Amino acid sequence: MESRVKPGLDGTQGTRNQVKEDGVGTPRTVRICDAVLRLVALAATLIAAAVIGTARQTKTVNIQVSPTLPPLPLTVAAKTAYSSAFVYFLIANVIACVYSAISLATSTVKRDSKSNIGLSLSIIDIAMVALLFSGNGAALTFGLLGKHGNSHVQWQKVCNVFGKFCLDVAVSSMVSLLGSVAYVLLVLLALVSLHKRSP
Amino acid sequence: MESRVKPGLDGTQGTRNQVKEDGVGTPRTVRICDAVLRLVALAATLIAAAVIGTARQTKTVNIQVSPTLPPLPLTVAAKTAYSSAFVYFLIANVIACVYSAISLATSTVKRDSKSNIGLSLSIIDIAMVALLFSGNGAALTFGLLGKHGNSHVQWQKVCNVFGKFCLDVAVSSMVSLLGSVAYVLLVLLALVSLHKRSP
Repeated sequence: MESRVKPGLDGTQGTRNQVKEDGVGTPRTVRICDAVLRLVALAATLIAAAVIGTARQTKTVNIQVSPTLPPLPLTVAAKTAYSSAFVYFLIANVIACVYSAISLATSTVKRDSKSNIGLSLSIIDIAMVALLFSGNGAALTFGLLGKHGNSHVQWQKVCNVFGKFCLDVAVSSMVSLLGSVAYVLLVLLALVSLHKRSP
Repeated sequence: MESRVKPGLDGTQGTRNQVKEDGVGTPRTVRICDAVLRLVALAATLIAAAVIGTARQTKTVNIQVSPTLPPLPLTVAAKTAYSSAFVYFLIANVIACVYSAISLATSTVKRDSKSNIGLSLSIIDIAMVALLFSGNGAALTFGLLGKHGNSHVQWQKVCNVFGKFCLDVAVSSMVSLLGSVAYVLLVLLALVSLHKRSP
């Protein structure tokens, strides 16, 4: 435990805070919050990537070719690879998942000197916010089009046929959103922590 | 001009930096970069919102109802309100534009005491990153579907009919992306600046 003196703006000594530190200037509570958020992000992006990556539905629908003929059975399939939006969403979550694991391992390792690791992690965290939110926007747009269609451009809804696949997309998007929020909170945590420590 | 001493980790005096400051501890160059980036974000989101908000195209296409009848002329229209993705993108850019103007005015006002304005702005900046990137993901997904269609779900491309509208969407998305990157850089600037100032 270390005593830290926070100087006032006029150069005089300000409030004296007792802050539990780990020897590198970052309070222990901040590091614990950081690790928990990275764990949440890791779990969320892993689940999101696994769900969208394995989402697949095959269904047999009856097509009426002519009023005089009986309906013809037709097998149709829905899978992630059929939409570039879902592929982008999957890649974004895989990247975020791998980075979450690496950053979790890096952030929990005790640093023995004032290093730029924390800053580097925060910089990549912001990139993850951008990557994940753009992926979520893409996946949700395609998913909502599948659910409701768009009558103005004659795009019919398909979730009435591929209900299970659409549910997988919805679950994956919601879980990924949780991971995205975790990354927003990680950047906020770094900002607030640095702001409190700055003179 | 003020002389600032950066202490070493062992308590000894480290490098002595001459940093131009404005009296509140933020180097002048950082504040100039901050203002320029907010100006870029303001201009980009304003242009993006204006372009997508006014995008509209009406066209007359000939529809062949029957092989024995002459083609019937049909007037079709494309506008932003026809897609929830474009509406979301427009709202995101309007919010970011209004906030850019407010934050630019706030950040250029000289602060006479150590305040949390800088931190508050950075927190909202992260929210803007999330908002703008999700909006970009949504608009680009709908735009690319309009350009290429999706044969797996029988969604036909429409940009061959609404070329001007699609061009407006592309321009708006690219300009908005510039604004989004400006917000990423603003958060990075705050992080690096705070990191440099922290003991």
